[in-house]
Amino acid sequence: MVAVPSIKLSSGHDMPQVGFGLWKVDNAVAADTVYEAIKAGYRLFDGAADYGNEVECGQGIARAIAEGLVKREELFIVSKLWNTFHDGERVEPIVRKQLADWGIDYFDLYLIHFPVALEYVDPSVRYPPGWHYEGDEIRPSKATIQETWTAMEGLVGAGLAKSIGISNFQAQLVYDLLRYAKIRPATLQIEHHPYLVQQELLNLAKREGIAVTAYSSFGPASFLEFNMQHAVKLTPLIEDDTIKSIAAKYNRDPSQVLLRWATQRGLAIIPKSTRPALIASNLASIEFDLSEEDIAKISAFDRGIRFNQPSNYFPTELLWIFG
Amino acid sequence: MVAVPSIKLSSGHDMPQVGFGLWKVDNAVAADTVYEAIKAGYRLFDGAADYGNEVECGQGIARAIAEGLVKREELFIVSKLWNTFHDGERVEPIVRKQLADWGIDYFDLYLIHFPVALEYVDPSVRYPPGWHYEGDEIRPSKATIQETWTAMEGLVGAGLAKSIGISNFQAQLVYDLLRYAKIRPATLQIEHHPYLVQQELLNLAKREGIAVTAYSSFGPASFLEFNMQHAVKLTPLIEDDTIKSIAAKYNRDPSQVLLRWATQRGLAIIPKSTRPALIASNLASIEFDLSEEDIAKISAFDRGIRFNQPSNYFPTELLWIFG
Repeated sequence: MVAVPSIKLSSGHDMPQVGFGLWKVDNAVAADTVYEAIKAGYRLFDGAADYGNEVECGQGIARAIAEGLVKREELFIVSKLWNTFHDGERVEPIVRKQLADWGIDYFDLYLIHFPVALEYVDPSVRYPPGWHYEGDEIRPSKATIQETWTAMEGLVGAGLAKSIGISNFQAQLVYDLLRYAKIRPATLQIEHHPYLVQQELLNLAKREGIAVTAYSSFGPASFLEFNMQHAVKLTPLIEDDTIKSIAAKYNRDPSQVLLRWATQRGLAIIPKSTRPALIASNLASIEFDLSEEDIAKISAFDRGIRFNQPSNYFPTELLWIFG
Repeated sequence: MVAVPSIKLSSGHDMPQVGFGLWKVDNAVAADTVYEAIKAGYRLFDGAADYGNEVECGQGIARAIAEGLVKREELFIVSKLWNTFHDGERVEPIVRKQLADWGIDYFDLYLIHFPVALEYVDPSVRYPPGWHYEGDEIRPSKATIQETWTAMEGLVGAGLAKSIGISNFQAQLVYDLLRYAKIRPATLQIEHHPYLVQQELLNLAKREGIAVTAYSSFGPASFLEFNMQHAVKLTPLIEDDTIKSIAAKYNRDPSQVLLRWATQRGLAIIPKSTRPALIASNLASIEFDLSEEDIAKISAFDRGIRFNQPSNYFPTELLWIFG
């Protein structure tokens, strides 16, 4: 079994540095995928209301626990608050629903998914609610980030989340949050790959004691299915000659090089795959070390290219939040 | 006299679209510069506590009024709240000091200079306080942006500012501010030039009814004196062949082309010069029109290159706020 290091969070809890990301895991295979990932040695699962597969992911967990593969307390289950539940009084009820979907009674970590407060949508009407209302309309709610964060802090007191954190926040909003937070965010989850290094945001998080989780570690590969022009045009990182030659040197896969580049620099990662060989090799990426020189070579890919800009998903730029 | 168009602000007041920027205007020449600029036809002056020249700028205003060149109500005087005065109870006192420095009893527009709350520095101890405390130390204050904005709103009620706005805010923080603002920001002042277009931020401001003022319209030229490597390396925009050829076509100066590119797209501008010929030509930039094709050509310069990142001024990246 791969020995996965832990990151000590400001909450006092330990978070596995390598986890399994559940974005875009089809409902039809989610239960089996989670079950197989536990078998392969994964302990952290990164879910979200928005991924629409929490029921099935919970089934995979339940099976693994029922079979004695793992205990609940050995797992680290992450989920996220969707935009339509930012109003203070909506936070705890939706967390209770999400916990019920998973079939568990606490999250190890619960994040604000995006710093975007949208009008409440009753889960019985549409769930997950997504970004849109009718057509391309976007309906903001009046909730401030402070209101939402205060409700997030309440989850810790209520025992519904061991740690709380944020996702897709940029520097200015992190600074502001730190002014009023009674419980500081344990983690910041961001898009991070060699085309989007965001070194200064990483420095900020480090100075403030916030652990960083990288998503979309393989870069454009995660976004090809959305027909994003700049994703399609770029060389996939795992096919890049430099990445491939580094991989060959260590007798590893290019994907492992991309993951190790992140973990060796102190970040947590949450790669996703539904192919057993990749599930295993992603986890095993923790078992070798890149030279400082090779790490620098990969960091030099930085072009500030972001894929997960909400406005990329819309025909018009209704919701542009990064930068 | 050049006829300068006005922009109708959400506060109901009219703001001249072309103004005079007071950053880096030496104290020794500030009074004369302001006086001459009024003579040349400028009515908007963009100052700030941080520029350290408000007393002298006010002397230039007083002379022009005393000589009957202009009345106070024909001027549009802008100033800004420095970082060390973000605590709610510090806002009104420092505005009263700044007004006394200028020798006026209200600002037409008062902005939060940066979304960065630093520990209070008594003006009798150090003024303007700048970014630093001792050495490179930065000391945050506990003030949230909401606390500061609420105090800014109080200035309008107290008659100390006709309109209030923000500067150097990015999208996420603008969205959050709009959630709690009782008085919406009338303007957003940002770095804006062909190397840093930020079109989506402009779209956001437009959708939200926030007028945008561009600073550093000439790009790297404003930052050469700070020895910023990326400013020194770039071709100065006014020496760029494309800009020069467009200028030649309209029989205008390259600097006028850069300014007109901004105003024709709806932005306000605040160029600065201490040379009479440039003071006049900057203002006169409003008097010709670029073709849509030439505007697009200039917009295509965009490389997302920002110069006014606070961390650029420090040996270490202690304060990184953009992105």
